[in-house]
Amino acid sequence: MMISKTSTKFNRIEMRFGLLSLLLVSWAFVQAADNDSIVARKFFSEELLNGKSYEMLDELCNKVGHRLSGSEGAAKAVEWGKKIMEQYKFDRVFLQEVMVPHWVRGEKEVGNIRRASGAKQIKVELCALGGSVGTGKDGIVAEVVEVKSLEELSALGKSNIEGKIVFYNRPLDPTLISTGHAYGGAVDQRRSGASEAAKYGAVGVIVRSMTTKLDDVPHTGALKYDSAVVMIPAAAISTIAANTLSKLLIEEQGVTFYFKMSCETLPDVLSYNVVGEIKGSEKPDEIIVVGGHLDSWDLGQGAHDDGTGCVQAIEAVRLFRALGITPKRTIRAVLFMNEENGIRGGKMYAKLAKDNKENHIAAIESDAGGFTPRGFGIKGDEKQVATIVAWKHIFEDYNMGQLGKGWGGADIGPLIDQGTVLMGFRPDTQRYFDIHHTREDTFEKVHKRELELGAAGMGVMLYLLSEYGL
Amino acid sequence: MMISKTSTKFNRIEMRFGLLSLLLVSWAFVQAADNDSIVARKFFSEELLNGKSYEMLDELCNKVGHRLSGSEGAAKAVEWGKKIMEQYKFDRVFLQEVMVPHWVRGEKEVGNIRRASGAKQIKVELCALGGSVGTGKDGIVAEVVEVKSLEELSALGKSNIEGKIVFYNRPLDPTLISTGHAYGGAVDQRRSGASEAAKYGAVGVIVRSMTTKLDDVPHTGALKYDSAVVMIPAAAISTIAANTLSKLLIEEQGVTFYFKMSCETLPDVLSYNVVGEIKGSEKPDEIIVVGGHLDSWDLGQGAHDDGTGCVQAIEAVRLFRALGITPKRTIRAVLFMNEENGIRGGKMYAKLAKDNKENHIAAIESDAGGFTPRGFGIKGDEKQVATIVAWKHIFEDYNMGQLGKGWGGADIGPLIDQGTVLMGFRPDTQRYFDIHHTREDTFEKVHKRELELGAAGMGVMLYLLSEYGL
Repeated sequence: MMISKTSTKFNRIEMRFGLLSLLLVSWAFVQAADNDSIVARKFFSEELLNGKSYEMLDELCNKVGHRLSGSEGAAKAVEWGKKIMEQYKFDRVFLQEVMVPHWVRGEKEVGNIRRASGAKQIKVELCALGGSVGTGKDGIVAEVVEVKSLEELSALGKSNIEGKIVFYNRPLDPTLISTGHAYGGAVDQRRSGASEAAKYGAVGVIVRSMTTKLDDVPHTGALKYDSAVVMIPAAAISTIAANTLSKLLIEEQGVTFYFKMSCETLPDVLSYNVVGEIKGSEKPDEIIVVGGHLDSWDLGQGAHDDGTGCVQAIEAVRLFRALGITPKRTIRAVLFMNEENGIRGGKMYAKLAKDNKENHIAAIESDAGGFTPRGFGIKGDEKQVATIVAWKHIFEDYNMGQLGKGWGGADIGPLIDQGTVLMGFRPDTQRYFDIHHTREDTFEKVHKRELELGAAGMGVMLYLLSEYGL
Repeated sequence: MMISKTSTKFNRIEMRFGLLSLLLVSWAFVQAADNDSIVARKFFSEELLNGKSYEMLDELCNKVGHRLSGSEGAAKAVEWGKKIMEQYKFDRVFLQEVMVPHWVRGEKEVGNIRRASGAKQIKVELCALGGSVGTGKDGIVAEVVEVKSLEELSALGKSNIEGKIVFYNRPLDPTLISTGHAYGGAVDQRRSGASEAAKYGAVGVIVRSMTTKLDDVPHTGALKYDSAVVMIPAAAISTIAANTLSKLLIEEQGVTFYFKMSCETLPDVLSYNVVGEIKGSEKPDEIIVVGGHLDSWDLGQGAHDDGTGCVQAIEAVRLFRALGITPKRTIRAVLFMNEENGIRGGKMYAKLAKDNKENHIAAIESDAGGFTPRGFGIKGDEKQVATIVAWKHIFEDYNMGQLGKGWGGADIGPLIDQGTVLMGFRPDTQRYFDIHHTREDTFEKVHKRELELGAAGMGVMLYLLSEYGL
């Protein structure tokens, strides 16, 4: 600060008064900041000493199990979620009705590579993509056309595609540091591949699994059919199988692929979002959500996707109770239904918020795995982002100071129209896509302390938002 | 920048000239910084696409296996290290002779809790601490005195300790975010517990395993006998066993503990540090070391401790070859022998550096596991630390921007007397002490991409040090 030598007496008095105010404000600010750091430390210590997130996850994975929308597991998970938040004495626990798709995998899928030479068939690890139609009981067998992109498919055109099985084989880019970015750069093949191939007369689609790992585990995930095109069956094959097939297509003539799947879509089913809240003491009408999605794929246990997000959300709210802190604003743990194949729960939540004229100032979602935390991505205007980024020093003590503009989450996404600031919990990304949407996504893959650090960090973010608003 | 309105013409000219210089310097700086970021990206892309670190680690863990100082495995590891750096065509690969301790575990240890009531004995998972004497073929059985600290032991005194087995049971503090700090706060029990207990006439020592995890896996690690006191046998018991024993000591009278170990120390053995270097093109006499330790404990495979450090060190240097970059200063990968129970290799390396009048400007060590990288700790003067911290932006792109004052490493430690700046590679700490010094420290616990990110980051640090010096 530079002080002019020509200032008048009045200026000097004003300035002194200004400095005094500044000092007082600064002092108050420092006090508040110190206090926030002290409270943050309490959240982390309580969680690391007496946390319930890991035992909750154990129950959800090992007692409830997987919970695809419309399944028995999903129904059990709704009951579980409601009961546990009631046990923890949240002020209000309630369900929100939502109709969800009901896709079933049917019998274990079968697939193999058939070689023209009469050489041995090669059994392939594969699984139906979520939402796929079945193949009929005889399965499908056809020649294979390998492509690396939707553009390459389009360039090949009908003459090269008709009657064949299209094999999408563009791997995740391993040079990207965030595996999430790598996934984002490849997942169009899984999501749109079937309908795009059907436009050129393909009879089926197989997709290289969406993972940076080379192994024999197929990764499912949702496809989206274009209603203007015939629905053809689509499966994911393991990365090892994809490499084997690709090699054979170069080395041998007349390689065909066979697969059989009995998956189908049944009528929609009534399901629920599960919501638990603690009422704010000063501004109860300002609501802050913390959530994960309760549904999962039907392979594995939906541990990292997104059991961890659910238990971290419940835990972030429970920690207020455990620490005897009443939030100034209302905080809500929301277990969204049907993120994986419809986001019906997320859409319903936003609709009801609007219908009920609720004011959601912020929503945090954890849906990137329960790995060691890095920080939060923020979707809001410049000022809102700056407000949150100013708390960086508090999170840096816990190695989760990566606060900046970013992605919120699929389930909280529909709240954006109401001006809600969206925040995505950011764990380390290296291990997530090893197990994402597979039979390997089980409780054992979750590390207790990593899970707890995330839960505590989400609790602290909830605390700061509930103290200061946006 | 505020510009005075009363500046003279001379001032204005000077200022313009100054601004021009500033712009030129800034431009050069920006160019250099941009170029460094481009080179950094090359290190990471090359490693993530074509890295050798994971396959090297596979060989070291699965073909060589564990490699305790003086063992056959250690001798094989020396050969392996030399051969692989020769294969990668480093300019010079050589061995440094060093005499190392030769402690052997002998037969699998046996231990159990004996209850006075005649109730069932409880088998305990335990292992000898490295360097411990054996119990003799009959083993030792005695009453147990539990303490939480060396201070508590001292307060109990001879009358309460004599003839008994001292049980050190202070856990790692779970509220510390860095498990390394938690380890540091508990490890005095393992390191000094035996001799301290012997001072009061104890006949043996059992120590709670040094881990935040609750399981049935005992963790070994070095103890240090005080030459003024009789050597008594010391073992680590699993955290589950420690909790069981602690509970029984409260609930029942006359609980005794039995253990039998045939470990012993044999005469010192000739072994080696393995060194591979690429000569600097401009200042070959300025040497920068990157290293890990080649020895390991005899349980597990020494994968994270410290196979990962060894292959990351080799890889960091190999990447210069792969990218066709000749460093301006000499870079050296050093595989130190005997970190675990003597640091003889580290001491010998520093001695030879001094004897040969070598100028080591910096040394980097990776010995905290091959987990997802966070950054580097730096041990140097303010200016040196500031020089390195100025590169933070380059590392932030790879989530490893935590650069600051910190710990270097045990093996490079003795170089401090020569004014060498020491740097410790910092991976995430959450999982390390789950497997540290146990049978669980195996190749499967290492994640390929996490290992590679660390290797590439170490390569980039080596590059920056070799370009700019300190």
